Amino acid sequence: MDRLKVAILGATGIVGKELIRMLEKHPYFELDALYASRHSAGNSLQVDKDGLSMEIREADAEEINRQHYDYIFSAVSEQSATILERELRGMGNRIVTNASGNRMLPDVPIVVPEINFKEISNLNKGYILANGNCSTIGLVLGLAPVAEFSIKSVDVTTLQAVSGAGYPGIPSLDILSNVVPFIQGEEEKIVAETHKILDSRNRTKFRLTATCTRVPVVNGHLESVTVEFDSIVAFDEILDSFRLFKNKDLPSGLPTLPERPIILQDAKDRPQPRLDSGKPGKMDGMQVSIGRIRVTGNILQFVLVVDNLVRGAAGSTLLNAEVAATLGGQI
Amino acid sequence: MDRLKVAILGATGIVGKELIRMLEKHPYFELDALYASRHSAGNSLQVDKDGLSMEIREADAEEINRQHYDYIFSAVSEQSATILERELRGMGNRIVTNASGNRMLPDVPIVVPEINFKEISNLNKGYILANGNCSTIGLVLGLAPVAEFSIKSVDVTTLQAVSGAGYPGIPSLDILSNVVPFIQGEEEKIVAETHKILDSRNRTKFRLTATCTRVPVVNGHLESVTVEFDSIVAFDEILDSFRLFKNKDLPSGLPTLPERPIILQDAKDRPQPRLDSGKPGKMDGMQVSIGRIRVTGNILQFVLVVDNLVRGAAGSTLLNAEVAATLGGQI
Amino acid sequence: MDRLKVAILGATGIVGKELIRMLEKHPYFELDALYASRHSAGNSLQVDKDGLSMEIREADAEEINRQHYDYIFSAVSEQSATILERELRGMGNRIVTNASGNRMLPDVPIVVPEINFKEISNLNKGYILANGNCSTIGLVLGLAPVAEFSIKSVDVTTLQAVSGAGYPGIPSLDILSNVVPFIQGEEEKIVAETHKILDSRNRTKFRLTATCTRVPVVNGHLESVTVEFDSIVAFDEILDSFRLFKNKDLPSGLPTLPERPIILQDAKDRPQPRLDSGKPGKMDGMQVSIGRIRVTGNILQFVLVVDNLVRGAAGSTLLNAEVAATLGGQI
Amino acid sequence: MDRLKVAILGATGIVGKELIRMLEKHPYFELDALYASRHSAGNSLQVDKDGLSMEIREADAEEINRQHYDYIFSAVSEQSATILERELRGMGNRIVTNASGNRMLPDVPIVVPEINFKEISNLNKGYILANGNCSTIGLVLGLAPVAEFSIKSVDVTTLQAVSGAGYPGIPSLDILSNVVPFIQGEEEKIVAETHKILDSRNRTKFRLTATCTRVPVVNGHLESVTVEFDSIVAFDEILDSFRLFKNKDLPSGLPTLPERPIILQDAKDRPQPRLDSGKPGKMDGMQVSIGRIRVTGNILQFVLVVDNLVRGAAGSTLLNAEVAATLGGQI
Repeated sequence: MDRLKVAILGATGIVGKELIRMLEKHPYFELDALYASRHSAGNSLQVDKDGLSMEIREADAEEINRQHYDYIFSAVSEQSATILERELRGMGNRIVTNASGNRMLPDVPIVVPEINFKEISNLNKGYILANGNCSTIGLVLGLAPVAEFSIKSVDVTTLQAVSGAGYPGIPSLDILSNVVPFIQGEEEKIVAETHKILDSRNRTKFRLTATCTRVPVVNGHLESVTVEFDSIVAFDEILDSFRLFKNKDLPSGLPTLPERPIILQDAKDRPQPRLDSGKPGKMDGMQVSIGRIRVTGNILQFVLVVDNLVRGAAGSTLLNAEVAATLGGQI
Repeated sequence: MDRLKVAILGATGIVGKELIRMLEKHPYFELDALYASRHSAGNSLQVDKDGLSMEIREADAEEINRQHYDYIFSAVSEQSATILERELRGMGNRIVTNASGNRMLPDVPIVVPEINFKEISNLNKGYILANGNCSTIGLVLGLAPVAEFSIKSVDVTTLQAVSGAGYPGIPSLDILSNVVPFIQGEEEKIVAETHKILDSRNRTKFRLTATCTRVPVVNGHLESVTVEFDSIVAFDEILDSFRLFKNKDLPSGLPTLPERPIILQDAKDRPQPRLDSGKPGKMDGMQVSIGRIRVTGNILQFVLVVDNLVRGAAGSTLLNAEVAATLGGQI
Repeated sequence: MDRLKVAILGATGIVGKELIRMLEKHPYFELDALYASRHSAGNSLQVDKDGLSMEIREADAEEINRQHYDYIFSAVSEQSATILERELRGMGNRIVTNASGNRMLPDVPIVVPEINFKEISNLNKGYILANGNCSTIGLVLGLAPVAEFSIKSVDVTTLQAVSGAGYPGIPSLDILSNVVPFIQGEEEKIVAETHKILDSRNRTKFRLTATCTRVPVVNGHLESVTVEFDSIVAFDEILDSFRLFKNKDLPSGLPTLPERPIILQDAKDRPQPRLDSGKPGKMDGMQVSIGRIRVTGNILQFVLVVDNLVRGAAGSTLLNAEVAATLGGQI
Repeated sequence: MDRLKVAILGATGIVGKELIRMLEKHPYFELDALYASRHSAGNSLQVDKDGLSMEIREADAEEINRQHYDYIFSAVSEQSATILERELRGMGNRIVTNASGNRMLPDVPIVVPEINFKEISNLNKGYILANGNCSTIGLVLGLAPVAEFSIKSVDVTTLQAVSGAGYPGIPSLDILSNVVPFIQGEEEKIVAETHKILDSRNRTKFRLTATCTRVPVVNGHLESVTVEFDSIVAFDEILDSFRLFKNKDLPSGLPTLPERPIILQDAKDRPQPRLDSGKPGKMDGMQVSIGRIRVTGNILQFVLVVDNLVRGAAGSTLLNAEVAATLGGQI
């Protein structure tokens, strides 16, 4: 089988590089081109372990469109991506994106396949298919399993790793032996995206508040979650919901889809970012670790860790493309 | 005026050493003796900047009682302190303690002077007067100003510094570039102590959940707090409550009492542990920094930082003793 | 072929656990038993990824000797190992050890196979075969390639990771945002062991000084090395010596022997501990990374990084056993 | 007495802010103006604890010259400072600078007062008076006391804090749980400046090599120093040289001059950056801590810590100005 031809926009960033790594020897997709802003154009990036490198081209809508890529992966962090993605969509391209600029558009679904892959549609014309923010993806994978119990409110405090801020990201002088309790726009994204992703499963929107902090951790976002349900829940039922969570309607055999999206951590002091996510470059990282589950009446507390570079970014973009390609009959 | 004669139990720990530092040239109290467990006895500790040192004695109830100290400061971390404190109380001594063992006894008040100094009573016979756990003290100083608005529920996630775990405390291999989302007994303490301290001000107990994490920060606990009120609150009223919070009935001139217990941080990314608490040895640290105040309907979110060694431990023990000595007419 | 039956002494420590991991599916050796001190005996440790676990037995010379292991791997950190290793040797056992207690005995060779594997002898009776200290192994692999140029003196400053101190090792309160410029006994070990290992190659002992520091890094020791030669050296010759270094007399096909022991790092800011060694559990880590090579007249400066858990400990112990088994005709 | 009128160039950087702090209530100097690059001009900076702020002006030679400042403190980090400083000197201004651009000019002395304050001359016309690089200042204060013993060679490895890189400086993703063994231009500065400063005391230039690394430490540079002397030295003599080191010809009463520039650390694991320098904002920090002194024949090894923001930058600039003002009869 010929593999589908793909390009990466924003190839020079952390997420772009992670995508390059995850696309190496991918069974569906063949990396054909790298794009970035003008000042990186002309440089080269290594694209496999044997040292093969590929030149970076300047991201220009006309020129990208001419290449007729099967999929365009967007890992651009700057606001400029917003326009470029829409232009390319207008020209009929399929955009699978990690960028946040278009996520909240009504015709752009934010897809976490285990939750709402059926929102992928219109597969025969140009579209933008988004994954959520790194913290959002972790949160919704933690909430979806228990959404059947009728959620009244959710409060989340995130402890986010520095790799989530991109490069150069947060200066070391700000974060060494410190916590910075503010991440621009992050809390708003979590609230809006979580509702958009979970809405189809949980009609009455619950109240959701978020507080986002940055901590001196290389990789792996930890989230402390408190859920209030409308009525009392049983500890064992909650545990089973996490453990058994799986979307049986998903196509089977997707290369980046884990058997189950959640790993339950039994140890009383887990999950931990360094032990339960990966450092940049780690191969797995598509599962969310959940632990410290406590139930008191109608209140559930738990802690989750999501690998912000893999499941929280590049891995989710890739998984969304795998689902789209399968649903679209290209695989 | 002759200063009151005091001894420290548990002088060799982090909190004990901070107490020694804070007692240097204290206007009310004169440090007369240091006590610790048998294996430290016979060693010496430096007690002032000029290098003066004092021998450590083995903590034995009979021997301590014979010295007729005006106040005994207890900074013992081990469970054994629980018995010793009660024995000494039984012999008629005044114990002002940072240890947790006796805090929840009905006849031991947990006092944060700005909130409930009037619970100090029975000043003429032996007693144990406790301050709260380091995280509790920060939390109740953040909740007391807004308790007038009728609190329905509180959820707190703490990001606690390693100095709060004592010495040797948490191994570096566990915490470097990591978060450990579990601290033995801490969440239970926060819930029980917060209710005990605030009870007299807020009759109907609100629901309170806590999740405690350890982060790679030297000193300064950060807490992310979400408060649900019974009805809608106004941002400006909340701000004024924090800014103006003060207990006007407190005796004036207490050496360790700050003019106001709360510093409001205007910057959007404050408070931060490294900037808004102190490193071990810093002189101030009695104020709690509060920032990131957000109000949405009947929901209040904010972030606080408390210096866990000063206001969260040694400084609160000392302040409680200052209040007791003043109320008791010794000053 | 039946695999050789091995046991691990000190199985519960960091190095013991790394050995367990490296022995999983090893082509020569089959893990048959775990030993540790009395207080760990009776517990179990996981020995493969599928969750198989093995009970820990109390380390007793008589009982160990009765089992007739082909090899006994010693990863014991305490001084007590010194006696136990000698007792077992006296009973005719083959001990391959990472422990330091017997390293400097005249009849215990310290072997880094690429340098001095020929010192392994007396293969038919009981022996102790040691690898060096974690910092020593990195240093000698950096010096051996250039030893042909007649070294006059070497000065090394190490920046050692916390995993090198074992568990619990160094308290986080001591090392967060700090450097501790002292590691008990380390400088003496580096000096004595380096001379013992390199002696056969470089008759006139050079002057060697070491300063050892601990830095807040999870894994990977960095060493800054300055070498003075008797005469001027050429940059290109030095580079070639590092690049081409290899011991052609070594048996081929050893499972844990890298193709070349040194990776030259071209980037001006490499090697770095986090990028050029592994985190605990990483599979490779047997190569030393060398970079920042500067030559000025007869002076050579360079920086190396050694994975202190793999090449600096468990991996070297295992490699030594592989060499011994091959030389002894057991493979 | 009217205080001398001073301005700060580069007021918005870390060193500029430290200078502002150190100038608050300074007995000789009165801060009159702040200058920075065009993009900061118009903003304000707080200049004392009571919240007084001062507007930042654009640094323009003509406009600065018109104000007739008694001293101009230069804390500019960019290369552009090099030209500006020379222009202002040409117009007859006294520039006391922390910037590196003009340090190696023959008519710009690099002054560490305890070593070579007599190089300050031509006090009645325009001049540039420089302090050394942060690491250089620490090193020369460690070498000067023992320079009388005839130094043959010096090898230094530095472990430098992130505050030394300015702001934003080194990205957290690069340095968390890591060491970066390269700092642009730093090794060359240490070699050239050390010789320039010590030359007058030690005619025959010794061989000096440096390797500079960045470590995850907020503030405080640690240096591991190995000195080879022409002949054997005695431990006690070395110790006395460090302990008693003082330049008795210096004017007395300089506000920023410590009684002795060196603190000897007796503890076997000191000096340490976090304990023996300050965090940003600490008042002292003018002394270099030296410890781990080892003497073997003609070889001396020691470790020093210098507060890179105070003695290594702002404090040295200020001290140089105090000396110049005193020698020039202005005080």
